[in-house]
Amino acid sequence: MYRLYDFLPSGNGYKVRLLLTQLGIPFELILLDILKGETRTPEFLAKNPNGRIPVLEITPGEFLSESNAILIYLSQGTDFLPLAPLEHARVMQWLFFEQYSHEPFIATSRFWLQHNLADEKRQALVEKQAPGYAALGVMEQRLKDHPFLVNDRYTIADIALFAYTHVAPEGNFDLSGFPGILGWIDRVKSQPNYVAITDEAIGQRA
Amino acid sequence: MYRLYDFLPSGNGYKVRLLLTQLGIPFELILLDILKGETRTPEFLAKNPNGRIPVLEITPGEFLSESNAILIYLSQGTDFLPLAPLEHARVMQWLFFEQYSHEPFIATSRFWLQHNLADEKRQALVEKQAPGYAALGVMEQRLKDHPFLVNDRYTIADIALFAYTHVAPEGNFDLSGFPGILGWIDRVKSQPNYVAITDEAIGQRA
Repeated sequence: MYRLYDFLPSGNGYKVRLLLTQLGIPFELILLDILKGETRTPEFLAKNPNGRIPVLEITPGEFLSESNAILIYLSQGTDFLPLAPLEHARVMQWLFFEQYSHEPFIATSRFWLQHNLADEKRQALVEKQAPGYAALGVMEQRLKDHPFLVNDRYTIADIALFAYTHVAPEGNFDLSGFPGILGWIDRVKSQPNYVAITDEAIGQRA
Repeated sequence: MYRLYDFLPSGNGYKVRLLLTQLGIPFELILLDILKGETRTPEFLAKNPNGRIPVLEITPGEFLSESNAILIYLSQGTDFLPLAPLEHARVMQWLFFEQYSHEPFIATSRFWLQHNLADEKRQALVEKQAPGYAALGVMEQRLKDHPFLVNDRYTIADIALFAYTHVAPEGNFDLSGFPGILGWIDRVKSQPNYVAITDEAIGQRA
């Protein structure tokens, strides 16, 4: 059985939990507290030298890191990842967009606010607003007249972007000006076997 | 023929130029000056709403952005991208590592120093040092006893990481403490049809 090393509030971890659940793949959940340095121990760094969750233990001792790489690995040969070259490439385009132009602004703001760092990070939070809203604008451009990010079908591109977009208000991003995104969030939530980011019952707790 | 919208000093653009050249695929090079706002015009934003190069025009009017998504698209079915699921996943892992944990620190520092922003960005440059060196440490961990990043063979993972690592000293990162990386840089440079980041002759200039 797969083992997922994770931290429940993490959207990056949630991506993998959501896909595994929607694929009906059972997994064992190993929870680490990143706030207590549990991903910086020698034991964990042997699993991922970059010291980040999520990490998927594919077989005993075989570890895969980077949430979007795990999504690609798990979705190969399923409806969540189109085979046609151009559609496949568009999924990849959104996955890299998410990690470079979206997550560092929208997810990081949420993390700081969730962990009471608003005062310490006051200036940094201000600086994250413009690039965060720019990323939401790029998504809106697509979603204002398409049901999903790629090919009018739910794929891992939607899972990857949904993870932090639907909780963007927790990072002080107001989604009310993005009707395309709001409609898409509802469509993602209505997918079969959808589970919420806060659902602690996902996976079999170790 | 492919058209590549690019900016010559860009490592992200260089990744695509290098792979196209090593695959022997001719392409037309359209140069834009990101410093003059040429990637923020309505005309360019219609090609990539995220306003960044490189953009590959696959067929007239069909545009693909995100350098690493372009690498994946072009390398499908070639020796540059392993087919075996775990090896394929490891390539993806390095590509996302590059965009999240490496490029924002190492490439950004180089960009500021190249464009005489050292004074304006003095504090930001200091803050990029620790995460940049951490990324180099993760690479060294692998390269100290392996010839390449994945599977002991040259892949797009090497191309993606090489682009900004080999010019890291231009961003004030000292590579002398990373013998594994230095040996790997030499191995990449000795690959067939290698071209340098500064080689303006790559591609057919429009």
